[in-house]
Amino acid sequence: MYKETHARSVIKLISWRFWASLTTIALVLLFVGEIKAALLVGITEVVAKIILYFFHERTWDKIRFGKKEIQPLILWFTGLSGSGKSTLSETVYKELMKKDIKTERLDGDTVRNIFSKTGFTKIERNEHIKRVGYLASRMEKNGIFVVASFVSPYRESREFVRGLCNNFIEIYISTPLEICEKRDTKGLYKKARNGEIENFTGVNDPYEEPQNPEITIDTSKLSIEKATEKVMKYINKKM
Amino acid sequence: MYKETHARSVIKLISWRFWASLTTIALVLLFVGEIKAALLVGITEVVAKIILYFFHERTWDKIRFGKKEIQPLILWFTGLSGSGKSTLSETVYKELMKKDIKTERLDGDTVRNIFSKTGFTKIERNEHIKRVGYLASRMEKNGIFVVASFVSPYRESREFVRGLCNNFIEIYISTPLEICEKRDTKGLYKKARNGEIENFTGVNDPYEEPQNPEITIDTSKLSIEKATEKVMKYINKKM
Repeated sequence: MYKETHARSVIKLISWRFWASLTTIALVLLFVGEIKAALLVGITEVVAKIILYFFHERTWDKIRFGKKEIQPLILWFTGLSGSGKSTLSETVYKELMKKDIKTERLDGDTVRNIFSKTGFTKIERNEHIKRVGYLASRMEKNGIFVVASFVSPYRESREFVRGLCNNFIEIYISTPLEICEKRDTKGLYKKARNGEIENFTGVNDPYEEPQNPEITIDTSKLSIEKATEKVMKYINKKM
Repeated sequence: MYKETHARSVIKLISWRFWASLTTIALVLLFVGEIKAALLVGITEVVAKIILYFFHERTWDKIRFGKKEIQPLILWFTGLSGSGKSTLSETVYKELMKKDIKTERLDGDTVRNIFSKTGFTKIERNEHIKRVGYLASRMEKNGIFVVASFVSPYRESREFVRGLCNNFIEIYISTPLEICEKRDTKGLYKKARNGEIENFTGVNDPYEEPQNPEITIDTSKLSIEKATEKVMKYINKKM
Protein backbone atom coordinates (compact mmCIF):
# COMPACT_ATOMS: atom_id res chain seq x y z
CA MET A 1 0.00 0.00 0.00
CA TYR A 2 1.53 3.29 -1.10
CA LYS A 3 0.36 6.66 0.01
CA GLU A 4 1.29 10.06 -1.40
CA THR A 5 2.33 12.48 1.33
CA HIS A 6 0.77 15.96 1.39
CA ALA A 7 4.19 17.47 0.68
CA ARG A 8 4.51 15.47 -2.53
CA SER A 9 1.01 16.43 -3.73
CA VAL A 10 1.65 20.13 -3.08
CA ILE A 11 5.10 20.23 -4.68
CA LYS A 12 3.91 18.25 -7.70
CA LEU A 13 0.99 20.68 -8.12
CA ILE A 14 3.32 23.72 -7.94
CA SER A 15 5.71 22.07 -10.37
CA TRP A 16 2.88 21.46 -12.85
CA ARG A 17 1.49 24.99 -12.57
CA PHE A 18 4.98 26.43 -13.03
CA TRP A 19 5.74 24.54 -16.25
CA ALA A 20 2.20 24.85 -17.60
CA SER A 21 2.07 28.62 -17.18
CA LEU A 22 5.63 28.97 -18.49
CA THR A 23 4.39 27.20 -21.64
CA THR A 24 1.47 29.62 -21.93
CA ILE A 25 3.81 32.60 -21.53
CA ALA A 26 6.09 31.19 -24.23
CA LEU A 27 3.13 30.69 -26.59
CA VAL A 28 1.80 34.23 -26.11
CA LEU A 29 5.32 35.58 -26.62
CA LEU A 30 5.60 33.51 -29.80
CA PHE A 31 2.27 34.59 -31.33
CA VAL A 32 1.92 38.10 -29.93
CA GLY A 33 5.52 39.10 -29.38
CA GLU A 34 4.87 41.24 -26.29
CA ILE A 35 6.61 40.21 -23.08
CA LYS A 36 4.32 42.35 -20.89
CA ALA A 37 1.12 40.79 -22.32
CA ALA A 38 2.67 37.33 -22.07
CA LEU A 39 3.51 37.79 -18.38
CA LEU A 40 0.07 39.25 -17.63
CA VAL A 41 -1.65 36.24 -19.26
CA GLY A 42 0.69 33.81 -17.53
CA ILE A 43 0.27 35.24 -14.04
CA THR A 44 -3.50 35.62 -14.32
CA GLU A 45 -3.67 32.08 -15.67
CA VAL A 46 -2.18 30.65 -12.46
CA VAL A 47 -5.12 31.95 -10.43
CA ALA A 48 -7.75 31.30 -13.10
CA LYS A 49 -6.69 27.68 -13.67
CA ILE A 50 -6.64 26.85 -9.96
CA ILE A 51 -10.24 28.08 -9.65
CA LEU A 52 -11.26 26.30 -12.86
CA TYR A 53 -9.62 23.06 -11.70
CA PHE A 54 -11.52 23.19 -8.42
CA PHE A 55 -14.92 23.55 -10.06
CA HIS A 56 -14.08 21.07 -12.80
CA GLU A 57 -13.25 18.37 -10.22
CA ARG A 58 -16.33 19.17 -8.12
CA THR A 59 -18.59 18.91 -11.14
CA TRP A 60 -17.12 15.64 -12.34
CA ASP A 61 -17.41 14.19 -8.87
CA LYS A 62 -21.16 14.58 -9.20
CA ILE A 63 -21.29 12.92 -12.62
CA ARG A 64 -21.82 9.18 -12.19
CA PHE A 65 -20.97 8.34 -15.80
CA GLY A 66 -18.10 5.87 -16.08
CA LYS A 67 -17.81 5.20 -12.37
CA LYS A 68 -17.88 1.46 -12.27
CA GLU A 69 -18.16 -0.37 -9.00
CA ILE A 70 -16.31 -3.65 -8.99
CA GLN A 71 -17.72 -6.35 -6.77
CA PRO A 72 -15.06 -8.87 -5.88
CA LEU A 73 -15.76 -12.48 -6.77
CA ILE A 74 -15.08 -15.65 -4.80
CA LEU A 75 -13.95 -18.19 -7.39
CA TRP A 76 -14.31 -21.55 -5.70
CA PHE A 77 -12.79 -24.51 -7.55
CA THR A 78 -14.10 -27.87 -6.33
CA GLY A 79 -13.37 -31.36 -7.62
CA LEU A 80 -11.45 -34.59 -7.05
CA SER A 81 -7.76 -34.82 -6.35
CA GLY A 82 -5.97 -34.69 -9.72
CA SER A 83 -8.95 -33.10 -11.50
CA GLY A 84 -6.93 -30.01 -12.46
CA LYS A 85 -8.29 -27.60 -9.80
CA SER A 86 -4.95 -26.23 -8.66
CA THR A 87 -3.49 -25.92 -12.16
CA LEU A 88 -6.53 -24.13 -13.53
CA SER A 89 -7.00 -21.87 -10.52
CA GLU A 90 -3.31 -20.91 -10.78
CA THR A 91 -3.71 -19.79 -14.42
CA VAL A 92 -6.89 -17.89 -13.55
CA TYR A 93 -5.08 -16.24 -10.64
CA LYS A 94 -2.28 -15.12 -12.99
CA GLU A 95 -4.82 -13.66 -15.44
CA LEU A 96 -6.40 -11.64 -12.61
CA MET A 97 -2.94 -10.44 -11.55
CA LYS A 98 -2.33 -9.27 -15.12
CA LYS A 99 -5.54 -7.25 -14.93
CA ASP A 100 -4.18 -5.63 -11.76
CA ILE A 101 -6.99 -7.04 -9.63
CA LYS A 102 -6.22 -7.59 -5.96
CA THR A 103 -6.60 -11.33 -5.47
CA GLU A 104 -5.91 -13.78 -2.70
CA ARG A 105 -4.98 -17.34 -3.65
CA LEU A 106 -6.10 -20.09 -1.28
CA ASP A 107 -5.14 -23.65 -2.04
CA GLY A 108 -6.09 -26.79 -0.13
CA ASP A 109 -2.54 -28.16 0.12
CA THR A 110 -1.03 -24.84 1.19
CA VAL A 111 -3.59 -24.25 3.93
CA ARG A 112 -3.34 -27.84 5.17
CA ASN A 113 0.45 -27.54 5.32
CA ILE A 114 0.01 -24.80 7.91
CA PHE A 115 -2.77 -26.59 9.78
CA SER A 116 -1.37 -30.08 9.59
CA LYS A 117 -3.70 -31.32 12.32
CA THR A 118 -6.83 -30.79 10.21
CA GLY A 119 -8.35 -34.20 9.65
CA PHE A 120 -10.24 -35.72 6.73
CA THR A 121 -13.45 -37.02 8.31
CA LYS A 122 -16.70 -35.52 7.07
CA ILE A 123 -17.02 -33.32 10.18
CA GLU A 124 -13.41 -32.13 10.00
CA ARG A 125 -13.57 -31.45 6.26
CA ASN A 126 -16.80 -29.47 6.65
CA GLU A 127 -15.39 -27.39 9.52
CA HIS A 128 -12.20 -26.79 7.56
CA ILE A 129 -14.05 -25.57 4.46
CA LYS A 130 -16.34 -23.35 6.53
CA ARG A 131 -13.34 -21.67 8.11
CA VAL A 132 -11.62 -21.13 4.78
CA GLY A 133 -14.92 -19.79 3.45
CA TYR A 134 -15.11 -17.33 6.31
CA LEU A 135 -11.61 -16.13 5.45
CA ALA A 136 -12.74 -15.74 1.82
CA SER A 137 -15.82 -13.75 2.85
CA ARG A 138 -13.66 -11.33 4.90
CA MET A 139 -11.43 -10.84 1.86
CA GLU A 140 -14.48 -10.14 -0.29
CA LYS A 141 -15.74 -7.60 2.24
CA ASN A 142 -12.43 -5.78 1.92
CA GLY A 143 -12.62 -5.63 -1.88
CA ILE A 144 -10.30 -8.53 -2.62
CA PHE A 145 -10.98 -11.32 -5.11
CA VAL A 146 -10.39 -14.88 -3.95
CA VAL A 147 -9.26 -17.85 -6.02
CA ALA A 148 -9.79 -20.93 -3.85
CA SER A 149 -9.09 -24.53 -4.83
CA PHE A 150 -10.25 -27.20 -2.41
CA VAL A 151 -11.59 -30.73 -2.94
CA SER A 152 -14.48 -29.56 -0.71
CA PRO A 153 -16.49 -32.74 -1.35
CA TYR A 154 -19.56 -31.93 0.74
CA ARG A 155 -22.50 -29.81 -0.38
CA GLU A 156 -23.23 -28.67 3.17
CA SER A 157 -20.02 -26.69 3.62
CA ARG A 158 -19.92 -25.40 0.05
CA GLU A 159 -23.43 -24.03 0.49
CA PHE A 160 -22.41 -22.55 3.85
CA VAL A 161 -19.59 -20.66 2.12
CA ARG A 162 -21.99 -19.54 -0.62
CA GLY A 163 -24.19 -18.11 2.12
CA LEU A 164 -21.29 -16.16 3.68
CA CYS A 165 -20.25 -14.55 0.39
CA ASN A 166 -21.98 -12.05 -1.88
CA ASN A 167 -20.55 -13.32 -5.15
CA PHE A 168 -19.78 -16.98 -4.78
CA ILE A 169 -18.85 -18.61 -8.10
CA GLU A 170 -18.74 -22.37 -7.83
CA ILE A 171 -16.44 -23.84 -10.47
CA TYR A 172 -16.91 -27.58 -10.64
CA ILE A 173 -13.94 -29.40 -12.13
CA SER A 174 -15.79 -32.47 -13.29
CA THR A 175 -12.87 -34.50 -14.66
CA PRO A 176 -13.97 -38.17 -14.23
CA LEU A 177 -12.51 -40.28 -11.43
CA GLU A 178 -10.86 -42.74 -13.87
CA ILE A 179 -8.87 -39.92 -15.47
CA CYS A 180 -7.90 -38.38 -12.12
CA GLU A 181 -6.79 -41.80 -10.89
CA LYS A 182 -4.82 -42.45 -14.08
CA ARG A 183 -3.03 -39.10 -13.70
CA ASP A 184 -2.44 -39.72 -9.96
CA THR A 185 -0.06 -36.73 -9.87
CA LYS A 186 0.68 -37.12 -6.18
CA GLY A 187 0.52 -40.92 -6.02
CA LEU A 188 -2.35 -40.65 -3.55
CA TYR A 189 -4.89 -42.83 -5.40
CA LYS A 190 -2.46 -45.72 -5.35
CA LYS A 191 -1.95 -45.34 -1.62
CA ALA A 192 -5.69 -45.04 -1.03
CA ARG A 193 -6.37 -48.20 -3.05
CA ASN A 194 -3.71 -50.00 -1.00
CA GLY A 195 -5.55 -48.93 2.13
CA GLU A 196 -2.74 -46.63 3.23
CA ILE A 197 -4.99 -43.55 3.24
CA GLU A 198 -8.38 -43.37 4.89
CA ASN A 199 -11.16 -40.94 3.90
CA PHE A 200 -9.77 -40.38 0.42
CA THR A 201 -12.41 -38.67 -1.71
CA GLY A 202 -13.41 -40.80 -4.70
CA VAL A 203 -11.95 -44.00 -3.26
CA ASN A 204 -13.22 -44.52 0.26
CA ASP A 205 -15.09 -41.23 0.76
CA PRO A 206 -17.88 -39.70 -1.33
CA TYR A 207 -17.79 -36.60 -3.53
CA GLU A 208 -21.11 -34.77 -3.67
CA GLU A 209 -21.34 -33.12 -7.08
CA PRO A 210 -22.48 -29.49 -7.16
CA GLN A 211 -26.10 -29.23 -8.24
CA ASN A 212 -26.02 -25.75 -9.75
CA PRO A 213 -22.39 -24.78 -10.29
CA GLU A 214 -21.87 -21.48 -12.08
CA ILE A 215 -19.21 -23.12 -14.29
CA THR A 216 -18.43 -26.77 -15.04
CA ILE A 217 -15.14 -27.82 -16.62
CA ASP A 218 -13.84 -31.27 -17.50
CA THR A 219 -10.08 -30.91 -17.97
CA SER A 220 -9.91 -34.22 -19.82
CA LYS A 221 -11.97 -32.59 -22.58
CA LEU A 222 -10.84 -28.95 -22.36
CA SER A 223 -7.22 -27.78 -22.42
CA ILE A 224 -6.02 -25.57 -19.56
CA GLU A 225 -5.78 -22.62 -21.99
CA LYS A 226 -9.39 -23.05 -23.16
CA ALA A 227 -10.61 -23.66 -19.62
CA THR A 228 -8.86 -20.49 -18.39
CA GLU A 229 -10.50 -18.58 -21.25
CA LYS A 230 -13.92 -19.95 -20.25
CA VAL A 231 -13.49 -18.84 -16.64
CA MET A 232 -12.11 -15.43 -17.62
CA LYS A 233 -15.01 -14.87 -20.01
CA TYR A 234 -17.41 -15.52 -17.15
CA ILE A 235 -15.48 -13.18 -14.84
CA ASN A 236 -15.35 -10.39 -17.42
CA LYS A 237 -19.09 -10.62 -17.93
CA LYS A 238 -19.63 -10.39 -14.16
CA MET A 239 -17.38 -7.35 -13.73
CA MET B 1 -13.81 -0.92 -5.05
CA TYR B 2 -14.49 1.69 -7.72
CA LYS B 3 -12.83 1.81 -11.08
CA GLU B 4 -12.92 4.63 -13.63
CA THR B 5 -13.80 3.36 -17.12
CA HIS B 6 -11.58 4.40 -20.05
CA ALA B 7 -14.49 6.36 -21.52
CA ARG B 8 -14.80 8.47 -18.37
CA SER B 9 -11.05 9.19 -18.23
CA VAL B 10 -11.00 10.26 -21.91
CA ILE B 11 -14.10 12.45 -21.71
CA LYS B 12 -12.97 14.06 -18.48
CA LEU B 13 -9.59 14.80 -20.05
CA ILE B 14 -11.22 16.39 -23.12
CA SER B 15 -13.56 18.38 -20.89
CA TRP B 16 -10.61 19.70 -18.88
CA ARG B 17 -8.54 20.61 -21.96
CA PHE B 18 -11.58 22.38 -23.49
CA TRP B 19 -12.28 24.60 -20.47
CA ALA B 20 -8.59 25.17 -19.69
CA SER B 21 -7.73 26.31 -23.20
CA LEU B 22 -10.91 28.37 -23.41
CA THR B 23 -9.68 30.17 -20.29
CA THR B 24 -6.30 30.79 -21.91
CA ILE B 25 -8.00 32.17 -25.05
CA ALA B 26 -10.14 34.46 -22.91
CA LEU B 27 -7.08 35.71 -21.03
CA VAL B 28 -5.11 36.46 -24.20
CA LEU B 29 -8.15 38.21 -25.64
CA LEU B 30 -8.44 40.24 -22.44
CA PHE B 31 -4.82 41.35 -22.27
CA VAL B 32 -3.90 41.45 -25.97
CA GLY B 33 -7.25 42.15 -27.59
CA GLU B 34 -6.59 40.15 -30.75
CA ILE B 35 -8.92 37.24 -31.49
CA LYS B 36 -6.54 35.70 -34.05
CA ALA B 37 -3.59 35.64 -31.63
CA ALA B 38 -5.84 34.34 -28.87
CA LEU B 39 -7.03 31.41 -31.00
CA LEU B 40 -3.49 30.62 -32.15
CA VAL B 41 -2.25 30.50 -28.56
CA GLY B 42 -5.28 28.44 -27.48
CA ILE B 43 -5.00 25.83 -30.21
CA THR B 44 -1.24 25.43 -29.93
CA GLU B 45 -1.64 25.17 -26.18
CA VAL B 46 -3.80 22.03 -26.52
CA VAL B 47 -0.94 20.15 -28.18
CA ALA B 48 1.80 21.72 -26.05
CA LYS B 49 0.10 20.95 -22.74
CA ILE B 50 -0.61 17.34 -23.62
CA ILE B 51 3.06 16.79 -24.39
CA LEU B 52 4.09 18.69 -21.26
CA TYR B 53 1.66 16.67 -19.12
CA PHE B 54 3.09 13.41 -20.44
CA PHE B 55 6.68 14.31 -19.58
CA HIS B 56 5.68 15.89 -16.27
CA GLU B 57 3.98 12.65 -15.14
CA ARG B 58 6.86 10.47 -16.37
CA THR B 59 9.39 12.57 -14.51
CA TRP B 60 7.42 12.59 -11.26
CA ASP B 61 6.95 8.85 -11.47
CA LYS B 62 10.74 8.52 -11.18
CA ILE B 63 10.94 10.86 -8.17
CA ARG B 64 10.65 8.84 -4.97
CA PHE B 65 10.11 11.88 -2.74
CA GLY B 66 6.85 11.70 -0.79
CA LYS B 67 5.97 8.16 -1.82
CA LYS B 68 5.36 6.54 1.52
CA GLU B 69 4.89 2.82 1.79
CA ILE B 70 2.46 1.82 4.50
CA GLN B 71 2.98 -1.57 6.08
CA PRO B 72 -0.25 -2.86 7.58
CA LEU B 73 -0.21 -3.77 11.25
CA ILE B 74 -1.83 -6.70 13.04
CA LEU B 75 -3.11 -5.26 16.32
CA TRP B 76 -3.71 -8.25 18.54
CA PHE B 77 -5.57 -7.54 21.79
CA THR B 78 -5.23 -10.33 24.35
CA GLY B 79 -6.54 -10.51 27.91
CA LEU B 80 -9.14 -11.95 30.25
CA SER B 81 -12.87 -11.86 29.64
CA GLY B 82 -14.09 -8.45 30.81
CA SER B 83 -10.64 -6.86 30.63
CA GLY B 84 -11.78 -4.28 28.09
CA LYS B 85 -10.29 -5.88 24.94
CA SER B 86 -13.39 -5.55 22.76
CA THR B 87 -14.24 -2.01 23.90
CA LEU B 88 -10.71 -0.72 23.36
CA SER B 89 -10.21 -2.52 20.06
CA GLU B 90 -13.51 -1.06 18.86
CA THR B 91 -12.40 2.52 19.58
CA VAL B 92 -9.01 1.87 17.94
CA TYR B 93 -10.82 0.41 14.91
CA LYS B 94 -12.93 3.56 14.64
CA GLU B 95 -9.82 5.76 14.82
CA LEU B 96 -8.26 3.79 11.96
CA MET B 97 -11.49 4.15 9.95
CA LYS B 98 -11.33 7.91 10.48
CA LYS B 99 -7.82 7.88 9.05
CA ASP B 100 -9.21 6.10 5.98
CA ILE B 101 -7.11 3.00 6.61
CA LYS B 102 -8.47 -0.27 5.31
CA THR B 103 -8.97 -2.38 8.43
CA GLU B 104 -10.57 -5.71 9.21
CA ARG B 105 -12.10 -6.19 12.65
CA LEU B 106 -11.95 -9.67 14.15
CA ASP B 107 -13.56 -10.31 17.50
CA GLY B 108 -13.62 -13.52 19.49
CA ASP B 109 -17.37 -13.54 20.10
CA THR B 110 -18.25 -12.74 16.49
CA VAL B 111 -16.03 -15.45 15.06
CA ARG B 112 -17.23 -18.01 17.61
CA ASN B 113 -20.84 -17.17 16.78
CA ILE B 114 -20.19 -18.37 13.25
CA PHE B 115 -18.16 -21.40 14.32
CA SER B 116 -20.22 -22.40 17.30
CA LYS B 117 -18.63 -25.85 17.43
CA THR B 118 -15.22 -24.45 18.35
CA GLY B 119 -14.41 -25.75 21.82
CA PHE B 120 -12.50 -24.26 24.74
CA THR B 121 -9.92 -26.92 25.58
CA LYS B 122 -6.27 -25.92 25.25
CA ILE B 123 -5.92 -27.78 21.95
CA GLU B 124 -9.12 -26.31 20.51
CA ARG B 125 -8.28 -22.78 21.65
CA ASN B 126 -4.81 -23.00 20.15
CA GLU B 127 -6.11 -24.32 16.82
CA HIS B 128 -8.78 -21.63 16.76
CA ILE B 129 -6.29 -18.82 17.38
CA LYS B 130 -3.88 -20.19 14.78
CA ARG B 131 -6.64 -20.20 12.17
CA VAL B 132 -7.71 -16.67 12.99
CA GLY B 133 -4.05 -15.67 12.88
CA TYR B 134 -3.73 -17.18 9.43
CA LEU B 135 -6.72 -15.12 8.30
CA ALA B 136 -5.04 -12.02 9.78
CA SER B 137 -1.78 -12.76 7.96
CA ARG B 138 -3.63 -13.06 4.62
CA MET B 139 -5.25 -9.69 5.28
CA GLU B 140 -1.85 -8.18 6.05
CA LYS B 141 -0.41 -9.62 2.83
CA ASN B 142 -3.18 -7.81 0.95
CA GLY B 143 -2.43 -4.46 2.56
CA ILE B 144 -5.22 -4.52 5.15
CA PHE B 145 -4.80 -3.67 8.84
CA VAL B 146 -6.31 -6.07 11.36
CA VAL B 147 -7.76 -5.27 14.77
CA ALA B 148 -8.22 -8.59 16.55
CA SER B 149 -9.54 -9.11 20.07
CA PHE B 150 -9.35 -12.62 21.46
CA VAL B 151 -8.76 -13.95 24.98
CA SER B 152 -6.03 -16.07 23.31
CA PRO B 153 -4.69 -17.31 26.66
CA TYR B 154 -1.84 -19.49 25.39
CA ARG B 155 1.61 -18.26 24.42
CA GLU B 156 2.07 -21.04 21.88
CA SER B 157 -0.67 -19.90 19.52
CA ARG B 158 0.04 -16.17 20.01
CA GLU B 159 3.67 -16.78 19.07
CA PHE B 160 2.51 -18.87 16.10
CA VAL B 161 0.46 -15.92 14.85
CA ARG B 162 3.40 -13.57 15.44
CA GLY B 163 5.46 -15.85 13.22
CA LEU B 164 2.86 -15.74 10.42
CA CYS B 165 2.67 -11.93 10.37
CA ASN B 166 5.21 -9.27 9.44
CA ASN B 167 4.02 -6.62 11.87
CA PHE B 168 2.42 -8.33 14.83
CA ILE B 169 1.63 -5.90 17.64
CA GLU B 170 0.66 -7.72 20.82
CA ILE B 171 -1.50 -5.51 23.02
CA TYR B 172 -1.83 -7.05 26.44
CA ILE B 173 -4.90 -5.86 28.33
CA SER B 174 -3.61 -6.56 31.81
CA THR B 175 -6.69 -5.58 33.84
CA PRO B 176 -6.48 -7.75 37.02
CA LEU B 177 -8.75 -10.78 37.39
CA GLU B 178 -10.52 -9.32 40.46
CA ILE B 179 -11.62 -6.27 38.45
CA CYS B 180 -12.70 -8.33 35.43
CA GLU B 181 -14.67 -10.61 37.73
CA LYS B 182 -16.28 -7.66 39.50
CA ARG B 183 -17.34 -6.18 36.14
CA ASP B 184 -18.58 -9.58 34.90
CA THR B 185 -20.24 -7.86 31.92
CA LYS B 186 -21.57 -11.10 30.47
CA GLY B 187 -22.27 -12.89 33.76
CA LEU B 188 -19.78 -15.57 32.76
CA TYR B 189 -17.55 -15.45 35.85
CA LYS B 190 -20.51 -16.20 38.07
CA LYS B 191 -21.44 -19.18 35.93
CA ALA B 192 -17.83 -20.40 35.90
CA ARG B 193 -17.60 -20.12 39.70
CA ASN B 194 -20.84 -22.11 39.97
CA GLY B 195 -19.26 -24.81 37.84
CA GLU B 196 -21.63 -24.15 34.95
CA ILE B 197 -18.78 -23.36 32.52
CA GLU B 198 -15.71 -25.49 32.05
CA ASN B 199 -12.38 -24.19 30.74
CA PHE B 200 -13.10 -20.60 31.67
CA THR B 201 -9.88 -18.59 31.49
CA GLY B 202 -8.95 -17.13 34.87
CA VAL B 203 -11.27 -19.40 36.84
CA ASN B 204 -10.64 -23.00 35.81
CA ASP B 205 -8.19 -22.45 32.95
CA PRO B 206 -4.86 -20.60 32.94
CA TYR B 207 -3.97 -17.33 31.22
CA GLU B 208 -0.36 -17.19 30.10
CA GLU B 209 0.72 -13.54 30.26
CA PRO B 210 2.60 -12.18 27.25
CA GLN B 211 6.34 -11.94 28.00
CA ASN B 212 7.22 -9.12 25.62
CA PRO B 213 4.00 -7.40 24.55
CA GLU B 214 4.47 -4.30 22.39
CA ILE B 215 1.86 -2.48 24.49
CA THR B 216 0.41 -3.18 27.96
CA ILE B 217 -2.76 -1.51 29.17
CA ASP B 218 -4.64 -1.92 32.43
CA THR B 219 -8.14 -0.53 31.82
CA SER B 220 -8.76 -0.27 35.57
CA LYS B 221 -6.02 2.38 35.67
CA LEU B 222 -6.35 3.99 32.23
CA SER B 223 -9.59 5.34 30.76
CA ILE B 224 -10.67 4.05 27.35
CA GLU B 225 -9.92 7.49 25.83
CA LYS B 226 -6.38 7.54 27.23
CA ALA B 227 -5.84 3.89 26.30
CA THR B 228 -7.00 4.55 22.71
CA GLU B 229 -4.60 7.49 22.55
CA LYS B 230 -1.74 5.29 23.76
CA VAL B 231 -2.41 2.68 21.08
CA MET B 232 -2.86 5.30 18.34
CA LYS B 233 0.38 6.99 19.30
CA TYR B 234 2.16 3.66 18.89
CA ILE B 235 0.47 3.07 15.53
CA ASN B 236 1.32 6.54 14.23
CA LYS B 237 4.96 6.05 15.14
CA LYS B 238 5.00 2.73 13.29
CA MET B 239 3.43 4.14 10.14
